[in-house]
Amino acid sequence: MPHTPDHRPAQAVPPPRIGIIGFGAMGAAMARNLQARHYAVSVRDIRPEAQAEAQACGMAVAASPAELAAGVDVLAVVVVNAAQIADVLYGTPDCPGVRAGSRPGQTVLLCSTIAPDDTIGFAQGLEAAGVVVIDAPISGGPARALSGAMSMMLAGPPAALQALEGLLADLAQNRFHLGAKTGDAAKAKLVNNLLAGINLAAGAEALALGMRLGLAPQTIFDIVTASSGNSWIFQDRMARAIAEDFAPRAAAPVLTKDLGLAVALAATVQAATPLGAVAHARFQDTVAGGWAALDDAAILKTYLSSPTEHAKVST
Amino acid sequence: MPHTPDHRPAQAVPPPRIGIIGFGAMGAAMARNLQARHYAVSVRDIRPEAQAEAQACGMAVAASPAELAAGVDVLAVVVVNAAQIADVLYGTPDCPGVRAGSRPGQTVLLCSTIAPDDTIGFAQGLEAAGVVVIDAPISGGPARALSGAMSMMLAGPPAALQALEGLLADLAQNRFHLGAKTGDAAKAKLVNNLLAGINLAAGAEALALGMRLGLAPQTIFDIVTASSGNSWIFQDRMARAIAEDFAPRAAAPVLTKDLGLAVALAATVQAATPLGAVAHARFQDTVAGGWAALDDAAILKTYLSSPTEHAKVST
Repeated sequence: MPHTPDHRPAQAVPPPRIGIIGFGAMGAAMARNLQARHYAVSVRDIRPEAQAEAQACGMAVAASPAELAAGVDVLAVVVVNAAQIADVLYGTPDCPGVRAGSRPGQTVLLCSTIAPDDTIGFAQGLEAAGVVVIDAPISGGPARALSGAMSMMLAGPPAALQALEGLLADLAQNRFHLGAKTGDAAKAKLVNNLLAGINLAAGAEALALGMRLGLAPQTIFDIVTASSGNSWIFQDRMARAIAEDFAPRAAAPVLTKDLGLAVALAATVQAATPLGAVAHARFQDTVAGGWAALDDAAILKTYLSSPTEHAKVST
Repeated sequence: MPHTPDHRPAQAVPPPRIGIIGFGAMGAAMARNLQARHYAVSVRDIRPEAQAEAQACGMAVAASPAELAAGVDVLAVVVVNAAQIADVLYGTPDCPGVRAGSRPGQTVLLCSTIAPDDTIGFAQGLEAAGVVVIDAPISGGPARALSGAMSMMLAGPPAALQALEGLLADLAQNRFHLGAKTGDAAKAKLVNNLLAGINLAAGAEALALGMRLGLAPQTIFDIVTASSGNSWIFQDRMARAIAEDFAPRAAAPVLTKDLGLAVALAATVQAATPLGAVAHARFQDTVAGGWAALDDAAILKTYLSSPTEHAKVST
């Protein structure tokens, strides 16, 4: 239900003008949620078709991250990875970045799942311009982002977090405060995604085993979801896999990237992640196997397609 | 609420007399549940203190599996592993087994988690005596067993399953029928427990990573349980681990055994279980590390105790 942004006197202080960079599944849902709550929302996406879609929703669009930054109070960066964040913050030869259009006092929310050291680096990169970075990875999928019911992990300067509490509450019903150390929210997000990735690969491994043993996939699904083997991601993704519905809600490369980041992060503190390493390899197999454009539920295919079966097909 | 066993005319046919072999956490809960539903329940356990406990509950006890078998209609075997099942079915030098006291028409429910080939072997071993074996592994823990709300996977001769439907419904609210092939329920149980074991090891791996990264365990728990990394066993066991409550509800060797069985079963059908193999190794580390008497939540200790930390302690 659209309503005036929470936690602010209705007329006294106008709500912050919001710029969303990255109008993908999550960014678009966040933009629409804020628009429905009567925020002024502007959008920047490198893809012309995404900008057209934003305009069709009645949102302003900008020709560059710099132009977007010049016209808003708060920016949320919802792109895929650290390389894309560097491009939108620092600019590319033909497209000036946030830093070129920003002014002191602005805040940038980094919502992507990236390495904590990259988050810290981006915070330092904008510091000289007087721009505050908040480490703000998100979770829950587009449907929950659209209703403001998603989760957000938060770390950064307490004053900046306090000032944006109303906006953050409108964006994410479930907010987890990790403290003042930028990067700690990124760490927490990678810990969660490490687990999601292992649980998904494990779900595929167990379902594939059951199928090879001659059991019906739906029976296995019914048993597991009522038993000790259940996980959130097994129930979600293996339902899709059994229905052979591989339209990408979360494409396979995303968790592949996150598992790689989590395993690399673990190495920096000498933590053992043997399951993470194996799950990462299975995700890499899924992407390398030609299923990069599919939903990550397609990891089941990696388990069902043994070298023996491939050999049978090709001879 | 105690009541007359379901699905039977109240006076016409007396409910079957039940013998429970193995008065451990699950067996005792099942016996108490049936007693509360007015079944005549007799018990056999190799441990005198367990027999004394059953007697204190008003149940009859038997001096041997053979004596128990002679006085009941249906036997449920709820011991730990296949070696114990062989002992109670075939007897030991000083204690005659079920086969020595059985009569044609009796039914034996095998409720332990064992290899499907062992289930098939036991069915053949009792066939000559006219005793029908039902492959009936259970899940859900003692609390649900006590109220009859546990799960049971079922495979075996359809006529025998049909004849016992009332008893099975009283034992286990959730019944999953795998068909007539003895061993298929054992397969399904191992598929579930493979997944439970991997998910538990993964939960410990992720929680330990978060802790080593300097995040508060309870914060990680709150984030994961609200996010895509959640699993039934993470929520259950890591809550115990964070509270440092390692009193064994499910001792570490049990899932260690199940993971070993699942990985070995996978090898018989050339299914890949790389995550299962790693999880099995972590469980073996937990047992070998001196935590065999603890709850399987203690697998977290395996991840927290690095060789480096051990070296620090010993020098």
